[in-house]
Amino acid sequence: MYREQIKVLDCTIRDGGLINNHSFTDEFVREAYIALSKSGIDYMEFGYRSSKELCPVHEYGAWKYCDDEKIREIIDGIESKLKISIMVDAHRVREQAFAPADQSPVDMIRVATYVKDIDKAIDLARRVKDLGYEVSVNIMAISKENEFALIEALDQLAQTPVDVVCVVDSFGALYCEQVEYLVKLYREHLPGKEIAVHMHNNQQLAFSNTIEGIIHNANYLDASLFGIGRGPGNCCLELLVGFLKNPKFNLSPILKFIQEHMLPLREQIEWGYILPYMLTGMLNEHPRAAIAYRATPDKDKYAEFYERLLEGLE
Amino acid sequence: MYREQIKVLDCTIRDGGLINNHSFTDEFVREAYIALSKSGIDYMEFGYRSSKELCPVHEYGAWKYCDDEKIREIIDGIESKLKISIMVDAHRVREQAFAPADQSPVDMIRVATYVKDIDKAIDLARRVKDLGYEVSVNIMAISKENEFALIEALDQLAQTPVDVVCVVDSFGALYCEQVEYLVKLYREHLPGKEIAVHMHNNQQLAFSNTIEGIIHNANYLDASLFGIGRGPGNCCLELLVGFLKNPKFNLSPILKFIQEHMLPLREQIEWGYILPYMLTGMLNEHPRAAIAYRATPDKDKYAEFYERLLEGLE
Repeated sequence: MYREQIKVLDCTIRDGGLINNHSFTDEFVREAYIALSKSGIDYMEFGYRSSKELCPVHEYGAWKYCDDEKIREIIDGIESKLKISIMVDAHRVREQAFAPADQSPVDMIRVATYVKDIDKAIDLARRVKDLGYEVSVNIMAISKENEFALIEALDQLAQTPVDVVCVVDSFGALYCEQVEYLVKLYREHLPGKEIAVHMHNNQQLAFSNTIEGIIHNANYLDASLFGIGRGPGNCCLELLVGFLKNPKFNLSPILKFIQEHMLPLREQIEWGYILPYMLTGMLNEHPRAAIAYRATPDKDKYAEFYERLLEGLE
Repeated sequence: MYREQIKVLDCTIRDGGLINNHSFTDEFVREAYIALSKSGIDYMEFGYRSSKELCPVHEYGAWKYCDDEKIREIIDGIESKLKISIMVDAHRVREQAFAPADQSPVDMIRVATYVKDIDKAIDLARRVKDLGYEVSVNIMAISKENEFALIEALDQLAQTPVDVVCVVDSFGALYCEQVEYLVKLYREHLPGKEIAVHMHNNQQLAFSNTIEGIIHNANYLDASLFGIGRGPGNCCLELLVGFLKNPKFNLSPILKFIQEHMLPLREQIEWGYILPYMLTGMLNEHPRAAIAYRATPDKDKYAEFYERLLEGLE
C-alpha cells in the first residue's frame, strides 16, 4: 500500500512508558532513536510533557516530562531526519512551558483529550501552533462517546489551525467497520486536516484496524516496536512497515532493535495478548480492571475475571 | 454479528497436533470436548485420518489417525450436540477406510488439498459424501496459486455434492482486501455451497480476516483455543466467540479451559506471535524456513533470518 502522504509515528517510549513509569534508560532511548532513524520512520514520540507540580519528579522517569534539554542529550551527534513528537494531556496542563519550535528539538505536539475537555485541548493546541509546532489532537476513548458530542468536538476542531486529528481506540474495542465509520466521520467533519489512527491490540485488531484506517485515507499511523504499550499494547511497527510498500522504510534495523532490546525488556514487563485485556476490550471497558487483576495472584483466572466484569456492568 | 447460519469449527486438536505430533492426552481431548460442548461450538476437529502405511503408528499420536473407536472412547458418556470433524489430505490417501456415517462418531470430513490435487480431492469427497458425511474441501496455500487454475478448481467443485469449500490462508499472507476478493470469488463460482475461512495468525490478522470473511458471507469459521496451531497458530476461538453475538455461544467454559489447559501447554510448546513466522507470512512464504530457524540457537536473530529469506527469494 504505497501512498506518499503516509507518515508513521513510533510511540514506543511514550506508550511503553505507561508500563515502566517512563523510566527507559538513556541508552535504550538513544538506540531506539538510531534504529528508527535508519528505518526511515517519520516521527518518534518520546513521552509526555507533564506538569511537575502534578507529577513530582522523584516519582517518574525522564520521559514523563520530556524536557527539551533531555531530548537534546539523547539525540546529540546522531544524524537523522526523524521528527520528534511529545504528548500533553489537555486536562493536566499546569505550568508546563514550551519554547518556540525553532528553539526546541520537538517538531510535533500531540494534545491528548477527552471530548469533554476539547476546549482545553483547543486552547493548548492554538498556543503551541502559534509557537511554530506541528499539532495533533488525539481524542481518546471514542468507543464510549456519544456521537452528538463527538461531532460537536470535531466541528470545533475544524475551526482551528490543528494539523492532525487522531482516532484513538483507547479500549481496544473497535473492529473494522467501526474504524471505517469513524475515519469517514472525521474526514467529513475535518476538511483539509490529516486523520491519524492509534489502535490498541486487546483483541489482536490493532494492525488490521490500522490497515482499515489506511484504506479510508488516514495518513498518520501510530505503532510501536514489538507492539509495546500498556496492557495489550499497540499496532506492531514491524507489521506496519512490512505492510507499507513505501521504499523509504527499512525493516532490518527494527528487527535488530527488537531482538536486542525488546526481547530482554519483555522478560521484565508484560504486554501483548493477555486475556483480561482481551475481555475489557471485548466489553468496551477501560483496562483498569484488567491492570488491577494482573497484579493479583489470581491473574490467570480468566473465567472468574470475566464473570466479575459482567457483574460489574449489570 | 448475529447470523443464524454461522457455524464455528474448533481445530485445536487437529491444527495443534501439528506441533506436538498429534499426541494430546486423552484427558486433554476429553476436557476440550466437554468445554466446547458447553460453549455451544458447532464442530470440533479431532485430527487427521492418515494412512498407517505412509505414517507408521509408532511415530505419531492417536490424532494422526482418528480411528472411530478412539474418538468413541473419548466422547463416551458425555452429553453433547457438538459435531465432530476429521481432516484427510487428498494427496496422501492410501488405505484409509471410512465407515458409513451412521456407524461413525464423525459428522464431517474435511478434505485438504492443493489446487493441483483437486481431482484426488473430488474423488475422495464424492466417496465420503456417498457414505453420508458432511463434506468440506479445503484448498490450501491459495495465496500462491494462480487465479486461472484456482477458478478451474472452483468450477469443478461446483459440480460436486461437496457442502462447504474453505478459503485457507496457509501462509498467513492475506490481508483484508484479499480475503474479501477471495470469499467473493468462491461465492461467485460455488453457487449454493457454504464458504468457510481458515486463517493463520502470522501477521496478527487471523481474527480480523475471519471477521472479513463473515462480512462477505462466509458462514463456516475455523478457530482454535488460545489460537493454538503450527507456528503463529490460528484465529483465537475466544476472540471469535466474543465477537459473534449469537446467544447459543458461551465464553466462560472456553476461558476456563484456556486457564487450566492451554497455559500449561504453552510452557511446553510454542505458538503465537513469533517474528520468523511474521516474516514468512509477510513475504507470502511457507513457514518451513521459520520452523527450521526456530530449532537453532539463532532462533531470535530476526534481522539475520529476514536477510536470509530475502536472499533465498532472489
